Amino acid sequence: MSSSYGHDFRMTIFGQSHSPAVGVTIEGIPAGSVIDFEALQHFLNRRAPGQNEFSTGRKEADMPEFLSGLKGNITCGTPLTAIIRNRDTRSQDYMNLANLPRPGHADYTAQVKYAGMQDAAGGGHFSGRLTAPLCIAGGICLQLLQQEGIEIISRIAAVGGIEDEGELLASTAEKTFPTVSEERGNLMQNKIAAAKKEGDSVGGIVECRIMGLPVGLGDPMFDGMENRIAAAVFGIPAVKAIEFGAGFSVSAMRGSQSNDMFCISEGKIQTETNHCGGILGGITNGMPLTFKAAFKPTPSIASSQRSVNLKTMKQETLQVRGRHDPCVVPRAVPCVEAAAAAAIYDALLSRRKETR
Amino acid sequence: MSSSYGHDFRMTIFGQSHSPAVGVTIEGIPAGSVIDFEALQHFLNRRAPGQNEFSTGRKEADMPEFLSGLKGNITCGTPLTAIIRNRDTRSQDYMNLANLPRPGHADYTAQVKYAGMQDAAGGGHFSGRLTAPLCIAGGICLQLLQQEGIEIISRIAAVGGIEDEGELLASTAEKTFPTVSEERGNLMQNKIAAAKKEGDSVGGIVECRIMGLPVGLGDPMFDGMENRIAAAVFGIPAVKAIEFGAGFSVSAMRGSQSNDMFCISEGKIQTETNHCGGILGGITNGMPLTFKAAFKPTPSIASSQRSVNLKTMKQETLQVRGRHDPCVVPRAVPCVEAAAAAAIYDALLSRRKETR
Amino acid sequence: MSSSYGHDFRMTIFGQSHSPAVGVTIEGIPAGSVIDFEALQHFLNRRAPGQNEFSTGRKEADMPEFLSGLKGNITCGTPLTAIIRNRDTRSQDYMNLANLPRPGHADYTAQVKYAGMQDAAGGGHFSGRLTAPLCIAGGICLQLLQQEGIEIISRIAAVGGIEDEGELLASTAEKTFPTVSEERGNLMQNKIAAAKKEGDSVGGIVECRIMGLPVGLGDPMFDGMENRIAAAVFGIPAVKAIEFGAGFSVSAMRGSQSNDMFCISEGKIQTETNHCGGILGGITNGMPLTFKAAFKPTPSIASSQRSVNLKTMKQETLQVRGRHDPCVVPRAVPCVEAAAAAAIYDALLSRRKETR
Amino acid sequence: MSSSYGHDFRMTIFGQSHSPAVGVTIEGIPAGSVIDFEALQHFLNRRAPGQNEFSTGRKEADMPEFLSGLKGNITCGTPLTAIIRNRDTRSQDYMNLANLPRPGHADYTAQVKYAGMQDAAGGGHFSGRLTAPLCIAGGICLQLLQQEGIEIISRIAAVGGIEDEGELLASTAEKTFPTVSEERGNLMQNKIAAAKKEGDSVGGIVECRIMGLPVGLGDPMFDGMENRIAAAVFGIPAVKAIEFGAGFSVSAMRGSQSNDMFCISEGKIQTETNHCGGILGGITNGMPLTFKAAFKPTPSIASSQRSVNLKTMKQETLQVRGRHDPCVVPRAVPCVEAAAAAAIYDALLSRRKETR
Repeated sequence: MSSSYGHDFRMTIFGQSHSPAVGVTIEGIPAGSVIDFEALQHFLNRRAPGQNEFSTGRKEADMPEFLSGLKGNITCGTPLTAIIRNRDTRSQDYMNLANLPRPGHADYTAQVKYAGMQDAAGGGHFSGRLTAPLCIAGGICLQLLQQEGIEIISRIAAVGGIEDEGELLASTAEKTFPTVSEERGNLMQNKIAAAKKEGDSVGGIVECRIMGLPVGLGDPMFDGMENRIAAAVFGIPAVKAIEFGAGFSVSAMRGSQSNDMFCISEGKIQTETNHCGGILGGITNGMPLTFKAAFKPTPSIASSQRSVNLKTMKQETLQVRGRHDPCVVPRAVPCVEAAAAAAIYDALLSRRKETR
Repeated sequence: MSSSYGHDFRMTIFGQSHSPAVGVTIEGIPAGSVIDFEALQHFLNRRAPGQNEFSTGRKEADMPEFLSGLKGNITCGTPLTAIIRNRDTRSQDYMNLANLPRPGHADYTAQVKYAGMQDAAGGGHFSGRLTAPLCIAGGICLQLLQQEGIEIISRIAAVGGIEDEGELLASTAEKTFPTVSEERGNLMQNKIAAAKKEGDSVGGIVECRIMGLPVGLGDPMFDGMENRIAAAVFGIPAVKAIEFGAGFSVSAMRGSQSNDMFCISEGKIQTETNHCGGILGGITNGMPLTFKAAFKPTPSIASSQRSVNLKTMKQETLQVRGRHDPCVVPRAVPCVEAAAAAAIYDALLSRRKETR
Repeated sequence: MSSSYGHDFRMTIFGQSHSPAVGVTIEGIPAGSVIDFEALQHFLNRRAPGQNEFSTGRKEADMPEFLSGLKGNITCGTPLTAIIRNRDTRSQDYMNLANLPRPGHADYTAQVKYAGMQDAAGGGHFSGRLTAPLCIAGGICLQLLQQEGIEIISRIAAVGGIEDEGELLASTAEKTFPTVSEERGNLMQNKIAAAKKEGDSVGGIVECRIMGLPVGLGDPMFDGMENRIAAAVFGIPAVKAIEFGAGFSVSAMRGSQSNDMFCISEGKIQTETNHCGGILGGITNGMPLTFKAAFKPTPSIASSQRSVNLKTMKQETLQVRGRHDPCVVPRAVPCVEAAAAAAIYDALLSRRKETR
Repeated sequence: MSSSYGHDFRMTIFGQSHSPAVGVTIEGIPAGSVIDFEALQHFLNRRAPGQNEFSTGRKEADMPEFLSGLKGNITCGTPLTAIIRNRDTRSQDYMNLANLPRPGHADYTAQVKYAGMQDAAGGGHFSGRLTAPLCIAGGICLQLLQQEGIEIISRIAAVGGIEDEGELLASTAEKTFPTVSEERGNLMQNKIAAAKKEGDSVGGIVECRIMGLPVGLGDPMFDGMENRIAAAVFGIPAVKAIEFGAGFSVSAMRGSQSNDMFCISEGKIQTETNHCGGILGGITNGMPLTFKAAFKPTPSIASSQRSVNLKTMKQETLQVRGRHDPCVVPRAVPCVEAAAAAAIYDALLSRRKETR
């Protein structure tokens, strides 16, 4: 199904940018799981619009209302639904897009797919707004994983070609602009500011690292951890690539380089290097699970673009209005954590069936 | 489930490297679909071992036996199962691996996951041998897609850091060493030969391009074409990264560069560039769908490696025996096509439910 | 997953009797499907409490709010969520049930299953209240089926052992007490009234008939129409049995009696009798699909009952308070239609994938 | 998918009556599960044809070959496939059926569904032969359940209107004609013999009882134990009805009768009666889970029947040849056990995810 994810933990995300609400229906969380609403809100705020000068001017409280599945702040075992009302919508900004699809957006493909019946306002179901319910579901997973000693940390690894430097730290994600190197972060922010000034946008890369994983999560072939995480992360709009461990660079290595030799460290089996990103045969090996995801530049840019009028089938010039981030990467960081958390938590539940 | 893929076209791959057979059970192919057995065998031969000097010495006919789902060469609408018998197995080569996991392999993770009950011989269910049934299923999909005007072509885009040159052609895949540039292909083969000589291996990149796709395949969020293809392609052993269209390089672009402007060409809506790889919002836009997958070097190398004895928990030196390709990339090319074909065909069936 | 149904049409029902809302998230309805809100409300009113003297005194408007998936009254192709707020709840009625499970209810089994963390108030997720979102989803399916010429009609076939008489008519369902025979209906109502007076309750049977079905819906083995409908109908609380066509009585027949001979009638292939209930090999044969479902008496009765205190593990006498129907059958009629409609509509979508 | 069953234990049944083989692919059995091949063969023999005078003359060894998923007789955690070769087929018996559908069979519905491309020989995928792989999968589940203290027993509850008498015993199923009362069994056998003599057939009822179940199996709404078992049992050809506990008769009861009062017995919570058949709110309550399934008479009868020629659309007289049981019920008993075992084992795996 289009907007569902997971086998044993299952989330179905619903809503359009300008529908009464966006939300998520979650199945599979065992009864008795405790949710820290304050921590969840703190996490959601990292994704919320209007947080800094580079994010869209649209202001939404992004406070979820829980409709079911809880008794107080404890899961009761049956489906959990949470919603966020859409309030600050300006559909008129999208009036001129009905027949003139924006380059880089789903306007044209949705128009064909849904035979013209799609909800185009604000990008409809394809809006970045839909990452809010993803972060509700993923934010809950993050808490449940933390209770089992699993931590997910992340950072902006690159923006507009400028790469961060230094080793990823747990504290990085909490920064307003989460890079390890302040200096590199400033260069990136300048890059974004320059693009914004010129009515343009820039892309970037998010890096994610998951620590404390038990050995044995993930399944062979199509349910390996790479498959599961990729299937979740490509659910975030604008992601065009993903790599695990050494990723693309592994293709230029020799086996004697890329193979992570086993060793005993801190009394347990580890590997000397981690080119495999903590995954062997689709299954976690107990080392940090690491991956990077590439985001394309925000496709909504102020400068005029060439498009085709779907009614007249003539080329026209398009001027995109509305409020858009010049770079989605800062707000994408918690989204990547949320997607990864959902994938890991789902694999964790699946793992329980195997152990007798 | 571990080794199943697809929603509406569903394949479940079974078997171990040294079990009586490997095979695949397929559901969802409509009745009346014609299978060209000769063309299928031709396709399977591209993946089969013993084809060239760089592939494992193991010889298997790799001729599938169809047990069900057909009346002659026409699908009858109910589940199709095909198997390939395992004949030329040498389990003794793997005797010394029982407690000494090979770096880069699933030996250790499977040992923990299956509590020591895994079938370790020849890599068991994690063996590259399991790509044979993947190619049966995917090879059938390729034929069914061709009947709808959809072509999947591919090549070796890089080996050991040496990149191919030139535009991908339909005829490339049929070459014994499928690169566009003969010269580049020769350099790559030298690289492989050198690694082999030194008891080492090299990795590489496969590029795939799907042409003739209708607009509208794929679904928003977690069932977009990127999600679907990634979930299939990571099912091939040794894949560590995937990128669509401009992929990672899009992260260094500006929106005004990366956005593919719409135009009218050959009487229909196309885009001037194709940085998005033919996918917008997870949905095909009618342009070629393009992606690249990175393969790590064959982890089984002849030179000695460091490992840990799982019984004694002491570090030991490991010498891998057995027959292994110094580079899996040439044989991986049809596997990537097969995985892509399964993903596309599944999306094609899903699309039928939407059109009234 | 617990509260999800369907392959291609998929509904996930959420909520507890006393949670902020109950609702349903629906995937798979093609874009462009028109929903008649007035007709839907009319259908929901047939199930709503407080409609007649035999239904619970609890009054709920039961007016759904649609949060997503629509543009006006037309589906836009992405997930549709509708909710009904819970307003008139009296949790204090259930205070004494925390440790004293009601016979015939899920109190005890939920207590064990959810390790004491279930939401017990009003029966929680096991309440008949959850049939409201089932009727939203099923009511939409009923409309979509009608647009394809498929009609679902039903009646009270029996209450407390008194059986209805006469052939089922389309108009029957619209009656306040939907029996064909007024006289039989009066006898049943007397039976209910008598039970109510004595603080007791009665069970009954609902009969359902689906007309206008094309030949070919349903799949062999585990996705036959019997399997699909049974899996949906047992989702309605209190259902303990289901039979298709001649049902249990077919077990006493000879093949020469039970076989429905083929004939040409009205220019098309029909059968002389319909003991198979319109299903052969799990697949519709074009004749009316008929089935009956048995409902147990409302387990919540006023008279005192024996139970066991889960804390003290001592037997105690239980007095159930709260507002309960003395017979759920009248309100169950639209629920059965809704469940059947969901099953049929799902099969109808699945069928589309087969036709090339 | 058509011929797949289960969420966490998943079996996909493939094959046609006259294809090279029938078989089953199973996913989800944890590694390290021990299979007793001899006991499995003993179980399969109970279903195999040619066992007594009332079963078809077709002789098949029905000995499964295991192709994957095992190391010796222990599951290795990856998909298990087992097949049975079809040898003694006489397709010519079915030549005259190509255009003349047999009443009570899937011939006509399959013809329409698969647009004439179905494999009609021997009933194809709709043949009772497909219960052989069901019994392989279910027979394995039976063993795994026994290892957890869960026993499934069953009997012929009725044939041709003659009902068995006495309480169901564990030893009953092992009888050649599994009734509790010898006398009643003889009457039934006379009934079958008489029907056979007249070229006719009879139907019957199978009763099943599952003991030793933990409290808490099954999920609310659409994954309750009734839903799960019904979805499996209707997968057996000829089943037209199912009832749990008191079943249809509960519809004539009052709540004060049908409610099963809780009590303390043998130191644990039990119920005084078991009208609910061990299921409350879809969840097991620790009492025996009981159900009955009704089978229609074998539709293939020797006497001439009326059918319609699908080519000429004219009514014709049909004479069915081939070898057929005059009553499927004796051989259906192990099939019902197998279907129930699959449903229970699947629920058992699902339950593991809930307990933390």
